[in-house]
Amino acid sequence: MARIKWVFFDIDNTLFDSQRLAAEARKNAVRAMIKAGLKAKPNEAFEKLMSIVKRYTSNYPEHFDRLVAEYDVEKELRAKIIAAGQGEYHNTKFRLLVPLEGVKETLRKLKRRGYSLGIITNGRAVKQWDKIIRLSVSEFFEPSTVIISEDAKAEKPQESIFTYALWKAKCPPHEAIMVGDKEEDMAAKHVGMHVIMVRRGQSFSEILKQVERIEKGR
Amino acid sequence: MARIKWVFFDIDNTLFDSQRLAAEARKNAVRAMIKAGLKAKPNEAFEKLMSIVKRYTSNYPEHFDRLVAEYDVEKELRAKIIAAGQGEYHNTKFRLLVPLEGVKETLRKLKRRGYSLGIITNGRAVKQWDKIIRLSVSEFFEPSTVIISEDAKAEKPQESIFTYALWKAKCPPHEAIMVGDKEEDMAAKHVGMHVIMVRRGQSFSEILKQVERIEKGR
Repeated sequence: MARIKWVFFDIDNTLFDSQRLAAEARKNAVRAMIKAGLKAKPNEAFEKLMSIVKRYTSNYPEHFDRLVAEYDVEKELRAKIIAAGQGEYHNTKFRLLVPLEGVKETLRKLKRRGYSLGIITNGRAVKQWDKIIRLSVSEFFEPSTVIISEDAKAEKPQESIFTYALWKAKCPPHEAIMVGDKEEDMAAKHVGMHVIMVRRGQSFSEILKQVERIEKGR
Repeated sequence: MARIKWVFFDIDNTLFDSQRLAAEARKNAVRAMIKAGLKAKPNEAFEKLMSIVKRYTSNYPEHFDRLVAEYDVEKELRAKIIAAGQGEYHNTKFRLLVPLEGVKETLRKLKRRGYSLGIITNGRAVKQWDKIIRLSVSEFFEPSTVIISEDAKAEKPQESIFTYALWKAKCPPHEAIMVGDKEEDMAAKHVGMHVIMVRRGQSFSEILKQVERIEKGR
């Protein structure tokens, strides 16, 4: 029978809907660019933007510059159109960076039941912390158990990011659960941790029942 | 007797209070960093931040990293504190990026009286356009007469940024006015333009009277 002490969470698509956020932010950005003078069809420009993001990765800072470069834009309009896209992208992002329904309540309940909570996430440290703070969930996690790949020098699904987290938490693997939305999160089971898969559209309060089920060894 | 056709404006400290914005944003950022775990006194940390801004210029992207480096901060807390500072800086900035009282009304009146309006500003093109868009004044200016030093390859007080603007506007110097808050803006008079100095705390609607006075050759 398990006795669980730690529950670790992924951030993107686990604590908030990052897929929806990115899609909405990019759609709104394209609309704002067209309004600012870009002569393009919204759907076509959105598809172009998506292939730029795919090609240059999502952390590349000049997606909108590249998009403008794909069109025949007067030199005088370039900066205005790029600024319109970037501004609207950020506005949408900040507006939609809210926890999924039930997240804060569930984290609160888990804490109240005596579990310690951590984060295991891939990405850049300051960027991931910005999300934790904007989601208003920083109170639930000790900074020492917020494990970000940039600091950990390992990325999910690599085993060493999970063992690093366990070492920081002073927790044996079978007393810890990893909650995430991807196969790379489920890789935690290779080091002996329990895992819970969050499915799109599923209520976050389900997590509580799944933790109980693991706790009871079922 | 003058017959004025064009009125050009500076952006920072002319259309909005950038001095207040920067000070508030940095004060709030320091407070957020302390709340996130930085062991510092607010005033002292603010002074340190100001000297970092002065030393590395305001466009340098790692002010908050430098500030954290001046304190003895646990490695685990670094990214959290930097993210807290950057996030609060941006929140404050977006909240305070609003036109000074009377700006939009005055621009509207000037347009209605038949003047064409332009911008002559120092800075990076996308950043300055972001301000114009967030201030909701982009409708008043044609992109071709928004003259930004990065594109114009000249900076105020250099004469060529003013002559470039006049060339774009197809306007002789004595039919144009430059409105700004600094000596570098007043340098427009060296190419023969009229100038209006905006003074801190002065009502923006004063501009209208000053344009009339110039128009009447007084």
